[in-house]
Amino acid sequence: MGETVPERTYREVMTCAAPPPATPLQVAARDFVFGAVWPRPGLSRRDRRWVTLTCVGAADAPEPIDEHVYAALNSGDIGLEAMLEFVLHFAVYCGWPKASHIEGVVRRQWARIQQERGAESGEFPLLDDATLGPSDWTQRLKRGVQEFVDVNLIPAPRPETPYIHAGILNFVFGHVWQRPGLSRRERRIITVACVAIDDSPMPLRSHVGAALESGDVTKGEMDEIVLQFAAYYGFAKAEALGSTADAIWARRDGRSAEPA
Amino acid sequence: MGETVPERTYREVMTCAAPPPATPLQVAARDFVFGAVWPRPGLSRRDRRWVTLTCVGAADAPEPIDEHVYAALNSGDIGLEAMLEFVLHFAVYCGWPKASHIEGVVRRQWARIQQERGAESGEFPLLDDATLGPSDWTQRLKRGVQEFVDVNLIPAPRPETPYIHAGILNFVFGHVWQRPGLSRRERRIITVACVAIDDSPMPLRSHVGAALESGDVTKGEMDEIVLQFAAYYGFAKAEALGSTADAIWARRDGRSAEPA
Amino acid sequence: MGETVPERTYREVMTCAAPPPATPLQVAARDFVFGAVWPRPGLSRRDRRWVTLTCVGAADAPEPIDEHVYAALNSGDIGLEAMLEFVLHFAVYCGWPKASHIEGVVRRQWARIQQERGAESGEFPLLDDATLGPSDWTQRLKRGVQEFVDVNLIPAPRPETPYIHAGILNFVFGHVWQRPGLSRRERRIITVACVAIDDSPMPLRSHVGAALESGDVTKGEMDEIVLQFAAYYGFAKAEALGSTADAIWARRDGRSAEPA
Repeated sequence: MGETVPERTYREVMTCAAPPPATPLQVAARDFVFGAVWPRPGLSRRDRRWVTLTCVGAADAPEPIDEHVYAALNSGDIGLEAMLEFVLHFAVYCGWPKASHIEGVVRRQWARIQQERGAESGEFPLLDDATLGPSDWTQRLKRGVQEFVDVNLIPAPRPETPYIHAGILNFVFGHVWQRPGLSRRERRIITVACVAIDDSPMPLRSHVGAALESGDVTKGEMDEIVLQFAAYYGFAKAEALGSTADAIWARRDGRSAEPA
Repeated sequence: MGETVPERTYREVMTCAAPPPATPLQVAARDFVFGAVWPRPGLSRRDRRWVTLTCVGAADAPEPIDEHVYAALNSGDIGLEAMLEFVLHFAVYCGWPKASHIEGVVRRQWARIQQERGAESGEFPLLDDATLGPSDWTQRLKRGVQEFVDVNLIPAPRPETPYIHAGILNFVFGHVWQRPGLSRRERRIITVACVAIDDSPMPLRSHVGAALESGDVTKGEMDEIVLQFAAYYGFAKAEALGSTADAIWARRDGRSAEPA
Repeated sequence: MGETVPERTYREVMTCAAPPPATPLQVAARDFVFGAVWPRPGLSRRDRRWVTLTCVGAADAPEPIDEHVYAALNSGDIGLEAMLEFVLHFAVYCGWPKASHIEGVVRRQWARIQQERGAESGEFPLLDDATLGPSDWTQRLKRGVQEFVDVNLIPAPRPETPYIHAGILNFVFGHVWQRPGLSRRERRIITVACVAIDDSPMPLRSHVGAALESGDVTKGEMDEIVLQFAAYYGFAKAEALGSTADAIWARRDGRSAEPA
């Protein structure tokens, strides 16, 4: 008696057997989300998890957050260090309160996994202040400007408002984007999902455009990100993300129009 | 060669032909949203539009808001008066700013439809202040308390904070819920979609519970609302709505367990 | 023939005459939002603007953001420096993308106001790196821990995750909350509105509780914040904010139950 594709996919992704579907929603989750989205090639399981974690975190959906954090850690697809870096990156783009909640979930689900494996949970070790980067402001801001340019592929703004000076140049690009534990490509994927949730048009165009323009994310991968996002945050916002990506891709004048 | 089910459904719902799908998102919209959700029996097309309009409005997704407002009016499923009442009810539960944006869309799409039909658009006539209801505060609050009880099936709170007094008893139940142009059942459906977007647990349980308890919405209809919501606002929040509805339905003590 | 209370209130708040209401939404805006909420005593106009700016910013509703930023600056109730500090504080609690949008709005509306007054707009002067605070990590984190305790009235968490270390202790409390240009009380009001939008229960209880417990915000002022929030972000989330505040106030052991 074999598993169906949705059943096997659910088990691999959620690290437990799919409950028998009892409502139209659960049937659609099995057939669409686990039958038609997660198994697709074109985007790795780990990258799909980044999009999903961002969506469930932003959606404040308590059980899905618990389940997806547990599944990401328990599957081994995402390690604790990377998950904790995700929490900080998510805090920047979706705000501190939601990140605060996810951080609590990460701690609880990590402790649960340790317990299930008969391992000690213990406290997290204190982080070294050296991990905060250079403390010379001139050096930090110069490096932050460079990171802004490398990530966004446009000139950095002048440090003329608190938001730009203390926030963008000193903290977001002067520190967070440079932290090890998550690659720049992964940070781009998480950021794209966050700006799609917010759907302010300029950050959306900016981050989607930089992800594609840099080559860190191919158009095919972006199409898969859009679909993964549609499953967890809905087709309304996914449409804005998708049409933004399509318009940016279409404007790449004169380059070889390789298929997505 | 005839239309497929998704193609025909798209045309009926959106009042125009489906564009040929060019991305994975568009293929999934055709197959899942228009192939597996909209055509389902168990919830009327008009009721599905209320859920969808709420989702796209809350999602701030510019083109979907334009397209779904146009389609709802152009199809004849929803008239202008009911649409404007929807905007006010939505304002109560999702806030004035998003409602203000939708109201602009309603005006523009109405003008567009009139133009397409070669009819005069004209100004909206000023509304008569008599439509605001009683201006005797004692009478208004007494009636508001009664409406609160009839809608929520629990005692009304004491008017001891501005939110309850000026907001809930005077305005929300003292006026908005009583307005003609939308039935109570329709107001319940819109409210359930709004609280599902917000996913604050108490309003969610309260409004979903009252919708089911009153008999205005059957469990089968609620299951369809959950699925329609999942398509437009994602499976993460839909899970919270669905499990709330299922838990409330399961607790209905001693009543005949008619199947959903 | 004089202005009605709603008409005068609209003109004072929005710094322009109210358009004649032609839809149920606009009639309700006049009578409820500008007739029953804004004119209330118990919370200053400036404080009501902080709640409103937070709500419209988080709601991504383009025209209301433009209108309320313009009105806040044009009325003189909020100066440019305070508005720019708001953008950074809002970025922390509602995420960088939405803040990015508001910062653009602030620039454009400021330029519009300067133009209307026949004044030069000009560039914003570059900010001095000294405004970034101490660059010695040990000193910065020690001060951040103290600020965390002073604001939240609970012990600071151990710096054992990036979110806590680099984020909370180094940046949010190690810098942003200490910046001049916005008082701590105002930062509390903006934060309460932000956590109400997110409605993660623990940040909500924490920040609402600290605002009340510190005495910086009275229960009467908090009640007015709840109502202002209900108008601009909806009654569903306002319910969670209101009941959180009421529960915290009710638990104040053994104190005289003075009326709010």
